[in-house]
Amino acid sequence: MSVERVLPTPEAHDLLDLVRDLIGKEVAPRAAADESAGRFPREVFTTLGAAGLLGLPYPEEHGGAAQPYEVYLQVIEELAAGWLAVGLGLSVHTLSCFPVAAYGTDAQRGELLPAMLGGELLGAYCLSEPHSGSDAAALTTKAVRDADGYAVDGVKAWITHGGAADFYTLMARTSPDGARGISCFHVPATVPGLSFGEPERKMGMKSSPTAQVRFDGVRLAPEALVGAEGEGFRIAMAALDGGRLGIAACAVGVAQAAFEAASSYAGERSQFGSRIVDFQGVSFMLADMATQIAAARALYLEAARARDAGRPYGTQAAMAKLFATDMCMKVTTDAVQVLGGYGYVEDFPVERYMREAKVLQIVEGTNQVQRLVIGRAIAKSGR
Amino acid sequence: MSVERVLPTPEAHDLLDLVRDLIGKEVAPRAAADESAGRFPREVFTTLGAAGLLGLPYPEEHGGAAQPYEVYLQVIEELAAGWLAVGLGLSVHTLSCFPVAAYGTDAQRGELLPAMLGGELLGAYCLSEPHSGSDAAALTTKAVRDADGYAVDGVKAWITHGGAADFYTLMARTSPDGARGISCFHVPATVPGLSFGEPERKMGMKSSPTAQVRFDGVRLAPEALVGAEGEGFRIAMAALDGGRLGIAACAVGVAQAAFEAASSYAGERSQFGSRIVDFQGVSFMLADMATQIAAARALYLEAARARDAGRPYGTQAAMAKLFATDMCMKVTTDAVQVLGGYGYVEDFPVERYMREAKVLQIVEGTNQVQRLVIGRAIAKSGR
Amino acid sequence: MSVERVLPTPEAHDLLDLVRDLIGKEVAPRAAADESAGRFPREVFTTLGAAGLLGLPYPEEHGGAAQPYEVYLQVIEELAAGWLAVGLGLSVHTLSCFPVAAYGTDAQRGELLPAMLGGELLGAYCLSEPHSGSDAAALTTKAVRDADGYAVDGVKAWITHGGAADFYTLMARTSPDGARGISCFHVPATVPGLSFGEPERKMGMKSSPTAQVRFDGVRLAPEALVGAEGEGFRIAMAALDGGRLGIAACAVGVAQAAFEAASSYAGERSQFGSRIVDFQGVSFMLADMATQIAAARALYLEAARARDAGRPYGTQAAMAKLFATDMCMKVTTDAVQVLGGYGYVEDFPVERYMREAKVLQIVEGTNQVQRLVIGRAIAKSGR
Amino acid sequence: MSVERVLPTPEAHDLLDLVRDLIGKEVAPRAAADESAGRFPREVFTTLGAAGLLGLPYPEEHGGAAQPYEVYLQVIEELAAGWLAVGLGLSVHTLSCFPVAAYGTDAQRGELLPAMLGGELLGAYCLSEPHSGSDAAALTTKAVRDADGYAVDGVKAWITHGGAADFYTLMARTSPDGARGISCFHVPATVPGLSFGEPERKMGMKSSPTAQVRFDGVRLAPEALVGAEGEGFRIAMAALDGGRLGIAACAVGVAQAAFEAASSYAGERSQFGSRIVDFQGVSFMLADMATQIAAARALYLEAARARDAGRPYGTQAAMAKLFATDMCMKVTTDAVQVLGGYGYVEDFPVERYMREAKVLQIVEGTNQVQRLVIGRAIAKSGR
Repeated sequence: MSVERVLPTPEAHDLLDLVRDLIGKEVAPRAAADESAGRFPREVFTTLGAAGLLGLPYPEEHGGAAQPYEVYLQVIEELAAGWLAVGLGLSVHTLSCFPVAAYGTDAQRGELLPAMLGGELLGAYCLSEPHSGSDAAALTTKAVRDADGYAVDGVKAWITHGGAADFYTLMARTSPDGARGISCFHVPATVPGLSFGEPERKMGMKSSPTAQVRFDGVRLAPEALVGAEGEGFRIAMAALDGGRLGIAACAVGVAQAAFEAASSYAGERSQFGSRIVDFQGVSFMLADMATQIAAARALYLEAARARDAGRPYGTQAAMAKLFATDMCMKVTTDAVQVLGGYGYVEDFPVERYMREAKVLQIVEGTNQVQRLVIGRAIAKSGR
Repeated sequence: MSVERVLPTPEAHDLLDLVRDLIGKEVAPRAAADESAGRFPREVFTTLGAAGLLGLPYPEEHGGAAQPYEVYLQVIEELAAGWLAVGLGLSVHTLSCFPVAAYGTDAQRGELLPAMLGGELLGAYCLSEPHSGSDAAALTTKAVRDADGYAVDGVKAWITHGGAADFYTLMARTSPDGARGISCFHVPATVPGLSFGEPERKMGMKSSPTAQVRFDGVRLAPEALVGAEGEGFRIAMAALDGGRLGIAACAVGVAQAAFEAASSYAGERSQFGSRIVDFQGVSFMLADMATQIAAARALYLEAARARDAGRPYGTQAAMAKLFATDMCMKVTTDAVQVLGGYGYVEDFPVERYMREAKVLQIVEGTNQVQRLVIGRAIAKSGR
Repeated sequence: MSVERVLPTPEAHDLLDLVRDLIGKEVAPRAAADESAGRFPREVFTTLGAAGLLGLPYPEEHGGAAQPYEVYLQVIEELAAGWLAVGLGLSVHTLSCFPVAAYGTDAQRGELLPAMLGGELLGAYCLSEPHSGSDAAALTTKAVRDADGYAVDGVKAWITHGGAADFYTLMARTSPDGARGISCFHVPATVPGLSFGEPERKMGMKSSPTAQVRFDGVRLAPEALVGAEGEGFRIAMAALDGGRLGIAACAVGVAQAAFEAASSYAGERSQFGSRIVDFQGVSFMLADMATQIAAARALYLEAARARDAGRPYGTQAAMAKLFATDMCMKVTTDAVQVLGGYGYVEDFPVERYMREAKVLQIVEGTNQVQRLVIGRAIAKSGR
Repeated sequence: MSVERVLPTPEAHDLLDLVRDLIGKEVAPRAAADESAGRFPREVFTTLGAAGLLGLPYPEEHGGAAQPYEVYLQVIEELAAGWLAVGLGLSVHTLSCFPVAAYGTDAQRGELLPAMLGGELLGAYCLSEPHSGSDAAALTTKAVRDADGYAVDGVKAWITHGGAADFYTLMARTSPDGARGISCFHVPATVPGLSFGEPERKMGMKSSPTAQVRFDGVRLAPEALVGAEGEGFRIAMAALDGGRLGIAACAVGVAQAAFEAASSYAGERSQFGSRIVDFQGVSFMLADMATQIAAARALYLEAARARDAGRPYGTQAAMAKLFATDMCMKVTTDAVQVLGGYGYVEDFPVERYMREAKVLQIVEGTNQVQRLVIGRAIAKSGR
């Protein structure tokens, strides 16, 4: 049972057709080998950029495609179904562009966005640190103002595209004043003093580098500041709202791919004289998987439409991230089960989906952080 | 955290406002007492009918309101949050009107629908029998054709509004040919030979009568037949697709009511020197409840929009029914838990919500039947 | 699949046979009617007492049966399967006897225990208050020492057997010093100044009265104090460790009864031409139910054997209570599902089991409190 | 919170101490590196054999240690906590010895067992085939009887220790008569005609080779037959009952290791100014993990004690395998979550535990097969 997408415009249908075509030709065929080899597919992002896919939700005047989030996220979902490293990479890139696009000055936007949205430059988002993950406001990387600009020192951790990106969107401390002492900066990869840790040896998403990003006396011009001083935490949180929807879409994509592999296998494998899809023990499991996926997709689309309509959507985004990624972990684990031994080996992609699913419960705020966010909204609303 | 509804038209917003007003004045205040006394609130349906709410998704020319399912279902949801017996009663009534509205002749529609949709007549839907529940096609109630019409004999079981309805939409066997031997009839409550069992003593929904409906030599005119002979099973299944969305909406309503009661209590109750909503042990539970409810609502709305757009939606309806009612069972059980001892007593409505939730996993096809329906669609799709 | 019990002695097998015989003749036949009528079966406890079952785990010298907890709990389990009000009532009675039995002076034991353990006197346990449930140490009922003894004022809430018991084991505050300011008292039901609220209108266990117990200038002699002043909280917690095992055993009993009803129904009910027990959709559900029940039983037995061997068992007791009662809620809810509509009506006992299950997640410390207890043990152990 | 084991004898305590000592010195230190390199630790099994651990539940007269299953399984559990490849390897070896030990002639036992139980020879168990996994009775590998013995042709799949074992316990078809046409053989690794597929590239347990075992005109002497012709399926099923308990113990061991890693991390990691073990969002998760592990351990011990007492235990073994492995999957997935990003990388062993857990839901009968086994027992028991 493949996905029948509901899209707002014929243009969006064309876009999704283009995306599926690209995935079939340029993305999916390389996934297994590159994952196995731990090889980052930088050129795939170039291809996506050339096809206009690296700036989907941003204004056309700066090279974006002005697509609603409802459409952009379904592109992410399809890419993630083909190869999570690419779908998640696009989500992270889009997140990294957000501060300049939403809070940058006209000059910054005019100068920086075209290359960022056009696919020449790939972004990374530097918020977490070794000792501040869930508690982002406790970050300690310092940006000290002086006559010429800022001097940045500190270490960022768990950075997707760390060492592979062309620019780093950085949250650093400009005053000791807690969350209000954080500011946002745009940092080209070429600045002196920037270095990178060894890529983390991860359970999955091995083709996508995750590394520490180290700032050692990095000098930034005053114009590197995005938004006002002290506004960084608010910018970071706003960026994360969108980023969480990207992760939710990735989770739905990976789960859909796992479900299709499992139901396809179940339609072909026979035991006890019947296709296993005809045993309720298997078909009820597949029915639950399909149902959970449909619910997750509906939930992220509702949140996306709220964003597209200009309504508050942060709590909904946290819900979509929480629900979709927990669902993805369950669905991919069950998909391996449907294939039995065949699910546990690399000959089929299903074991990869399961390894990929786990990271989605952790990134852009662990699912415990999502529950914190939602729980606070409930406590505040008085009921 | 109350619900912010997304509705397609300003008219729909007005409708929902009207509904909420009616619930606050006419529905919710009576629920506890009538449930406790097992008293069917027939006059509430008269009030709903007078307000134009008994024919929402049907054409205006026959007295309906021509509302999309997306809107109709949200009305059901709000009513069910106020009092499930009323929300579910409206869903059953709407289901009972469907065969005449969708498959009736112009004459039948012109003659029957105005009173059915206008609130004067309340409907019931007679499909299940003591020995054919999940296996509806095995029904044995017979309608034997003769010169003057049909003679009907048999027993229907688990009929909502049994003994209280003004008309019964009946599925009966007109030939031994399995599912293809079933036909649909419109039966006024006044026909001789119709009688009713004692209302079932149910765990919840005690105000809504559920009873056997017995046909003992009931004579029906030829025009009582709705659709062609042998078309009844197909009509019944089409009716159930819509009915399942009604149940999904009911489940979301009951869960929302339980969630609001629990979060409200958690915001007021203190233990260990803090409001319990400030303990993660409670707030994470509330966050999960809110997330599951949001996912269920998004899922039934997606299915409703598919129906409104004329796309196939039967599998989605089964998913929505399955997901929403399992969710409702979990959420209401957890809501009682949040209130602790207070949740277990009738002073709060939460224990009622939990008793109500259980029936939703059973009606309009048990959740095992929904998994069958979804599983078959997966097996058929080849993956 | 009925239970094959593993018991340490032939004597214990005889005891269980006696218990099953009593249940079949004196307990189970009355359960449905008394639950429906809300009638407390006081005389059943007299019968149990006459059979020597009201003092099972206590020393023979004071009228107990000197049975290990491993055996006592299996008696509780069987009784709860027959009728929870009786099984739980016995657990509460045993809990109420614990302070005198374990912390009383020789004089108190000699004077009080024979009647308490012999079945003449039924006990209740007064710890919770309207504003201190989970946070038991915050209780405010006062016992003020003066020349003649103690003057007690305050209100206890959610007291099982409140108004029906012959003695009340009371925790009251003798100093403002938090948990260390609480003391334990033995209060006969006949003392002036003792009164009772209306029985709570509960979702289930309607035959077992739960009520407020009010102390209004109640005078107690100095010998009413059990243990030392200030030792009450420690006594209460020790009593609860055993009480939690009693609840775990009750939960296993109710779940076993629900499972047997469901599997029996599934072996008789046919749909689609087969017994429904032969569909994996049903039989896998039954398999999971049986497995969960077996795990819960094994867990409480391990904890009981630890207690019987004199090892610390408080954390295990909390685990057993948590696991068994969550399991019971799930299993009874699923049992109703197996019976479908028949599960939702009072003609079968299954809906009663489901209503009973819910209270077990709440009493003797909600399952959130159990997680607190276990979580603290984990935090303390350093890993 | 480490494990306090309840063991039947002081000797068993000494045995467990020895095992823990061996694990600390010889097993655990190599696990990460060998798993990463996919290197089979053959010499570890030699060490275990020298320490008397390869024949624990078998009679002393043939070199076994005559330990009850209750003890043997706790050894397995500890080994699996240190390194699953070793714990599971020992379980498979023990399973492979079972047919000769339980069904062999005195001559076979005298000749074969000493080396099998003494640690010189490592075993493998050849039941599954590419097209018969869950449906073991459908196997097609043939053993054709002729004057000199048997000629064996066919392919076995998913064989643990395939290519590394010294003997293969083989189930092959000696007649076309379904389950009754299967016989059991003892096959030394040195027989001509035996060859092996490439080791499967698995998600986890990479150090333990899993491979096809191919029989191409393999000649076996008549005395290679174990038990009577046609008795093989019954032998295989009896062997699996014990094997399933071994898997259950492995699952508890892996889960315990994951829990200890997670609770240890939670006691050290600070966020928002507190150790994360002090947040209920984490500590409740740890409490649930500890509870589930305790239940699984109690369940396999109950089944083991039934076996040790000579009672039927097959259904209990299926329950223990089902419960423990589903539990292990959940607990290890949650353990990664507690560590967040640190859980997803190879610097900590937790991601390995999660990859290992998955295989346990599949081997020795998938958990769907366990539900079949349990479900049939329920259907047969009449309730």
